[in-house]
Amino acid sequence: MVDETKPGWTRRPFTPWYKEGRSWLKQQMEQAGLQVSTDAGGNLIGKIAGKNDDLKPIMIGSHTDTVIGGGRFDGIIGVIAGIEISRRLQETGMTLNHPLEIVDFTGEEPSEFGISTIGSRAMVGNLTPEMLNRTDQTGLVLADGIRMIGGNPDTIKELARKKGDISLYLELHIEQGPVLEQKNKRLGVVTGIVGIHRYRVIVEGKPNHAGTTPMDMRFDALTGASELILELERLCKESYADPVVGTVGKFINEPNGANVIPGRTMFELEVRSIDTEIIEKIMNKFSDFANLIASERSLNISLDNLSKSDAIRVLPEVQDEIAAACSATGETHYLPSGAGHDANQLANIAPVGMIFVPSRDGRSHCPEEWTDFEDVGKGIEALARAVIHFDQKNTN
Amino acid sequence: MVDETKPGWTRRPFTPWYKEGRSWLKQQMEQAGLQVSTDAGGNLIGKIAGKNDDLKPIMIGSHTDTVIGGGRFDGIIGVIAGIEISRRLQETGMTLNHPLEIVDFTGEEPSEFGISTIGSRAMVGNLTPEMLNRTDQTGLVLADGIRMIGGNPDTIKELARKKGDISLYLELHIEQGPVLEQKNKRLGVVTGIVGIHRYRVIVEGKPNHAGTTPMDMRFDALTGASELILELERLCKESYADPVVGTVGKFINEPNGANVIPGRTMFELEVRSIDTEIIEKIMNKFSDFANLIASERSLNISLDNLSKSDAIRVLPEVQDEIAAACSATGETHYLPSGAGHDANQLANIAPVGMIFVPSRDGRSHCPEEWTDFEDVGKGIEALARAVIHFDQKNTN
Repeated sequence: MVDETKPGWTRRPFTPWYKEGRSWLKQQMEQAGLQVSTDAGGNLIGKIAGKNDDLKPIMIGSHTDTVIGGGRFDGIIGVIAGIEISRRLQETGMTLNHPLEIVDFTGEEPSEFGISTIGSRAMVGNLTPEMLNRTDQTGLVLADGIRMIGGNPDTIKELARKKGDISLYLELHIEQGPVLEQKNKRLGVVTGIVGIHRYRVIVEGKPNHAGTTPMDMRFDALTGASELILELERLCKESYADPVVGTVGKFINEPNGANVIPGRTMFELEVRSIDTEIIEKIMNKFSDFANLIASERSLNISLDNLSKSDAIRVLPEVQDEIAAACSATGETHYLPSGAGHDANQLANIAPVGMIFVPSRDGRSHCPEEWTDFEDVGKGIEALARAVIHFDQKNTN
Repeated sequence: MVDETKPGWTRRPFTPWYKEGRSWLKQQMEQAGLQVSTDAGGNLIGKIAGKNDDLKPIMIGSHTDTVIGGGRFDGIIGVIAGIEISRRLQETGMTLNHPLEIVDFTGEEPSEFGISTIGSRAMVGNLTPEMLNRTDQTGLVLADGIRMIGGNPDTIKELARKKGDISLYLELHIEQGPVLEQKNKRLGVVTGIVGIHRYRVIVEGKPNHAGTTPMDMRFDALTGASELILELERLCKESYADPVVGTVGKFINEPNGANVIPGRTMFELEVRSIDTEIIEKIMNKFSDFANLIASERSLNISLDNLSKSDAIRVLPEVQDEIAAACSATGETHYLPSGAGHDANQLANIAPVGMIFVPSRDGRSHCPEEWTDFEDVGKGIEALARAVIHFDQKNTN
C-alpha cells in the first residue's frame, strides 16, 4: 500500500497505493461495526448510530496520505484510533448518545495542486471551483482525482457541513516536534494551532568583482541578508506570553559565483504563533530592522507578504475535557500545534480538540518518523475517554 | 568579430570569432611594422628588432578573448596599446635598444578547461600535458584548440621561455574595480597581484520542521552560516598594512524548503591580499570563530582549503619606473590588482609591471564595462614612457 519507487513510506492521494489503502481501511471500518460511505469530497467515513439521532455527531478524523518519503504515523494513527475506539465500543456493547463518525480525510498533506487539507476543506465548503480545476504535474485535474476515489465534486458545495452540524471534532496526531519527548510527557493537550505569516524578502545590492572591489565599496546582498536572518532569530528567541517560532527555510543567492560579490538574495521567512499579535509585533520590529540595514548598507530590501493563516484556538472547555482524559491516562503537557491539520478546517464549523503523542527526536515527514506503540495506545485511550465523557455530559 | 548569439561582447578562445579577431589583429600588427608569428602556445606575437640583438626583449602583452557577455576593454586595450606604441616608434623612426614583442596571449579568461591564462602558462612552461588533454563541453581537446589557432602543443615544453629570457614584461589593463574612479586618478601603478586563498565551508545542523521545533531546540545551519559570513566581513574590514578583501560568493542552502529549518549550508569563501600573512591571520581568526559557533550552536562546521595562489609583488624598481612614467602623464595612485592577469604567469620568469586605467563604476566582465578613451590614451602614453625609459637605462 505504499509507492515502492519512492523513498520511505509514500502514499500520495489519488494514486493506486492510496486507493489500495482506502479499500483495506474500508474493510477495517466494516469489521469494527461502522457503516462506511464516501462523501462528496472523497472522504472515507465510517458511522455508528447513537442512542439519540437528534444529536449532532461526534467526529474523529485524520488522514492516511503521506508526503513523499514520509513515515508511518503522521495522520495514520488518528484514523486507526477512531476505528479502534469503534471496535471497542462494539466489543463492549456500548452505545454512545451521539452518532459517531470516523473520517479518513482526502489528501491532507501539501499537494501538487498547491493546497493541503483537500478533504477537510471540501467537508466544510472551503474547496473552491478554482481549486477543483487545478491540475498536478501529471495533468490530473483535482476534481477528477476526487471522482476517482468515489467523491462527487459537483455536490461538494451543496452537501458541505454547516456550523452546528458536528458537536465535537477530535483528532489524535503525532506531535512532529521534540517538546513532549524533551519534557518526558506521554500526552499533549493541544491549546491551539499556530497562525503562520509568510514573507518573501529580496535584498538587492551590486554583483561586483570579489577581487577588485574594496570592502568599503561593496553592496553585498549576502552579508545584508545574514544580518536579517540573525535578527529574525533573535526576535523570536525573546520571551513572549505564548510560544513563537520564526524560520528562514528557503534561501537563494545570486549570481552565486565564487568570485562575485552577491548582488541579490531572495529568502522566505515565516513566523508562527497562536497569538497573531506576537507575530505582528515581531514582523514590525523585523521590518524596522530591515530598513535600518538597507540604509546602513545602501541595499534595496523589500518584504512581501505571501500568506497569513489565522491561528486556531481550542476552546477552554474542550481543552479541559481533553486534559481530564489525558491526565487519567498518562503524564500530560499543554502545547500549541506548530503544524496545520484537518482540525484547522473543521474549526470553521465545530469545536475542535487535539491530542498529541511524542515523536522520537521530534522527527516527522521522513522514514525515521517514530512513536512508541505504548504512546500510541495511551493516545487512543485518552481520545476514547474524551469522547465518552463528552458524550455523557452533553446529552441534549 | 564577436559571437552575436551571446549577450554583450563575447569572443571565446578557439571560436570562429576569435580566429577572425586574430586575423584582424595580425593585419594591424603588420601595418605597425611588426613581424608576426604564432608561438607553440598559440600566442600571436608581433616583433620589432632592437639595436642590440644580444639584449633580451621587452614584452608588452594582454589578451583579446572575453568572458561570455563581457566588454570591449578587458585585455583588449593592453594588446592595442602594444600595437599603438609600435606604430608610433615606426612613424617617428625610433629604434629601441631592446627587441620589442607585442603579445596577444591565448585564452586568458577562465575557460571550460578549468584553467585561465592558457597562453601565458604555455609561454612560461606551466601548461601541463594533463591540462592539454582536457576537453570542453563541446568535446574540444585543449591541444587541438591550440593547433586550430596555429600553435603546436607538442613543442610547448621544449620552446618555453626561461628565467632571464625576457628583460621586462609590462601590461596595461583596466582596473576592473572602483578605486581609481573613487580617488579621481587617471593612472594606477600596480604594486602586486593579490594571492587568493579559497575555502569550502560546510555547516551541518538538523533539518527539522519549522513549525513544531521550538527556537531553543534548533540546529539551524543557515543562522550558523550567517554568523560566519558576517564575521568574515568584519575581519576583512579591520585595518591592515596592505589592502585585503574577503568574500562569500557562492552559497547553497539545504533542503531549502520554506517550512524546513535548514539542515546544511555550503559556501565558498575567498580572501585576497598581496600579503599572505594577512590572509593567514584572518583565516586563523575565522577558523577559531567557526569553532566557537560550532560549539555554541551544536553544529558541525568544516573548513576545507580549495586553493592557495601566491601573490605577485611588482619589484620596487619596476614600480618606480612605472610611477615615474605615470606621474609624467596624469594623476597617479598605487594599488594592488585584485584580479589575476597574464602577468601572474610571466612573473615566474621575468620582472613584471602593470598600469591600470579607471573602470567606470568599477564594472567589468559585463557589457557596461567602460573606460574613457582619454584614459586609455593616457595609459598607452605612460606605458610608452616606461618602455622607452627602461630601454634607455638598461643598454647592456
